[in-house]
Amino acid sequence: MKSAILCVGSELVLGEIVNTNSAWLAIHLAEIGLETIRHETVGDDEPRLIDSLLHSVSDADVVIITGGIGPTPDDITRQALAKAAGVPLVRDSGALAHIEHLFAGWGRKMSPSNAIQADFPEGSTIIPNPRGTAAGFRMPLGRSEVFVLPGVPSEMKAMWEESVRNILLGKGNGGAVVTGTVNCFGRGEADITDQIKDLMAPGRNPSVGDTAEDAVIKVRIRATADTRDAAMKMIEATKADVKRRLGDCVFGEDDDTLHSMVLRMLIERKATVATAESCTGGLIAKLFTDISGSSAAFIQGVVAYHNEAKVRLLGVPRELIEKHGAVSEQVARAMAEGARAAASTDYAISVTGIAGPTGGTPEKPVGLVYIAAASARGVESREIRLRGTREQIRDRAAKQALNLLRMVLISS
Amino acid sequence: MKSAILCVGSELVLGEIVNTNSAWLAIHLAEIGLETIRHETVGDDEPRLIDSLLHSVSDADVVIITGGIGPTPDDITRQALAKAAGVPLVRDSGALAHIEHLFAGWGRKMSPSNAIQADFPEGSTIIPNPRGTAAGFRMPLGRSEVFVLPGVPSEMKAMWEESVRNILLGKGNGGAVVTGTVNCFGRGEADITDQIKDLMAPGRNPSVGDTAEDAVIKVRIRATADTRDAAMKMIEATKADVKRRLGDCVFGEDDDTLHSMVLRMLIERKATVATAESCTGGLIAKLFTDISGSSAAFIQGVVAYHNEAKVRLLGVPRELIEKHGAVSEQVARAMAEGARAAASTDYAISVTGIAGPTGGTPEKPVGLVYIAAASARGVESREIRLRGTREQIRDRAAKQALNLLRMVLISS
Repeated sequence: MKSAILCVGSELVLGEIVNTNSAWLAIHLAEIGLETIRHETVGDDEPRLIDSLLHSVSDADVVIITGGIGPTPDDITRQALAKAAGVPLVRDSGALAHIEHLFAGWGRKMSPSNAIQADFPEGSTIIPNPRGTAAGFRMPLGRSEVFVLPGVPSEMKAMWEESVRNILLGKGNGGAVVTGTVNCFGRGEADITDQIKDLMAPGRNPSVGDTAEDAVIKVRIRATADTRDAAMKMIEATKADVKRRLGDCVFGEDDDTLHSMVLRMLIERKATVATAESCTGGLIAKLFTDISGSSAAFIQGVVAYHNEAKVRLLGVPRELIEKHGAVSEQVARAMAEGARAAASTDYAISVTGIAGPTGGTPEKPVGLVYIAAASARGVESREIRLRGTREQIRDRAAKQALNLLRMVLISS
Repeated sequence: MKSAILCVGSELVLGEIVNTNSAWLAIHLAEIGLETIRHETVGDDEPRLIDSLLHSVSDADVVIITGGIGPTPDDITRQALAKAAGVPLVRDSGALAHIEHLFAGWGRKMSPSNAIQADFPEGSTIIPNPRGTAAGFRMPLGRSEVFVLPGVPSEMKAMWEESVRNILLGKGNGGAVVTGTVNCFGRGEADITDQIKDLMAPGRNPSVGDTAEDAVIKVRIRATADTRDAAMKMIEATKADVKRRLGDCVFGEDDDTLHSMVLRMLIERKATVATAESCTGGLIAKLFTDISGSSAAFIQGVVAYHNEAKVRLLGVPRELIEKHGAVSEQVARAMAEGARAAASTDYAISVTGIAGPTGGTPEKPVGLVYIAAASARGVESREIRLRGTREQIRDRAAKQALNLLRMVLISS
């Protein structure tokens, strides 16, 4: 079974909003064995929508349409579907009552324009919307089954989970495609793919490939099997093989991040951590505290942007800054030690560097960063040289510092 | 002139990566008068790529293709183009020398598989890639001009800026569509649209609409005119009108953010700022330091995640925490005052709250946040009650604190 995704909205086709619905739907379709063959996006334009609709039904068994079922005049999906199918729109009294009920609950009177949201192409089946007034519907068109959902991601996702997924599962199509990743940091992409070249051979199932995303190399594994469980088992076996080959540069799987894994390691050891940041400006603290429960390990962070702040908050000796400069391995080490002492934590990490684009010199160019990790066993530090935009340099510097702490944790 | 965008890549059509190229290209095409009528995304599958290519050239004057021109066997865009046009691939010796030169610069030997990146459909014109080995090309197909660019966003964007944009401008197509926004915070969407209802009438040029993005209401203005300059002038006039009507809740335009505008206001006044964060965990410091040049105003930040850190780093009296709790207006005020005193800055802002999803109580539920802004004139503070995920609560809390400082700056 093949699926096609068709998103409707001028704001999407003009690029004012990035379309995230297509990717989300494709992943969820794959999980129940439907391979997506195409995404299309068109504006609020009836002839073009009908053209893309006919294109979709020409080669897909299932077409998922999102958007264009609101109450305003530029919402044209229900009309286009009716026209393409050659059927009239029919008002559904149950749907109308439901919309009136929603408005009453909000203490507002339903405006007459909302009544159109109770109109559906004749022969279609309503898909309830638990979160809004825009009910969806499904109907046959040509040899395809077409599902129409709202464009608002939260509503679309809720309706997928509560209705569409089960309807498609019920179709009993065989086969599931599941994707998993093994996430690596600290080794080059070529170096990593060299170790798993045989797994990356074309035609293998699970297939293995890799992508680099912001300096994290993700080994991507895609398994096709009769059931989701069987595909999951295949994914797990290949994951284990990849991890065995790649060793310490593997920090996690799937959605695992360096900061989530470091935090998990700290919590497992009942250990605490503090941060001392200069060029990353709070990014590492922000990453730790993105995670609910981080207070079990993360005690405090200092963003010592000015030299005086490094002296004041971290006890870095002023002479050290004067002698070596704020961007130096010595100062990075003193920041980590100072952060650990000030917060009485088991571990501390520090970053000082030049994120650019300005502020570089021939001796200390943009991208020069020093990182350090302090523990009861002393201080580990590194000089790193990064390239890219300010955002990239800050991101990579934070990751390098987190990875340094990860290596310290592994070896202790 | 109409354009269509066609993105090639199995990772895109399977949803493993969200496609951001289409939106970026659509905005940049609109700026030079090309209306995008459709986005399509297909996998690394030659028949499907040719099918979508023919669909695109059926009704677009310009087709932009991204992806599928790397050196691996699943890169099939150049072959598909040649097949669709009925022409052979021809090796370009200049392009080959360029790729060999790039590899030599990296101290590596070009692998034979890279040579395919010097093959182009007969009759096409090469588009240089300043950032990588994958040169693009353009060629006529049917009544359209087809442009092929790499899928890597940074390379695609550089080639657009350096080549494609100028080629398309040179085509002298009339008409330009330009989009601009007026960005507001701190008032409800309905309240804002009420003030500009007449500007939002259908058919107006510039058209005016609004979107809510992470609690920022953006009034979106889209002007169509003969030239980009004329459209820009129309945008400016409507922007001025919208700003006049909406007053203080307007903090900026287009890409302006609350933190970039607050930082700009501080730098203009030669004023300094410090931050004291609990539940936002460094997010505000991170936002300030995202901006190059932030060191002119941002001195230091403290992430006082544990109570002890609030005492130690910010001098919050321990009794205050014991009496009112760490999440209280009193503690938020003491944090802001303490941050300002510790850093000797002109201003300081603080946040303390419960970001969730755990940690709430009936008296102090998830989403309860206190913010404060300290200046020489004293301390302003607010209790706010937020809903949403942890990420949303942290984002909104940071924005509320930044906006409080913005209001203090405006009134001083």
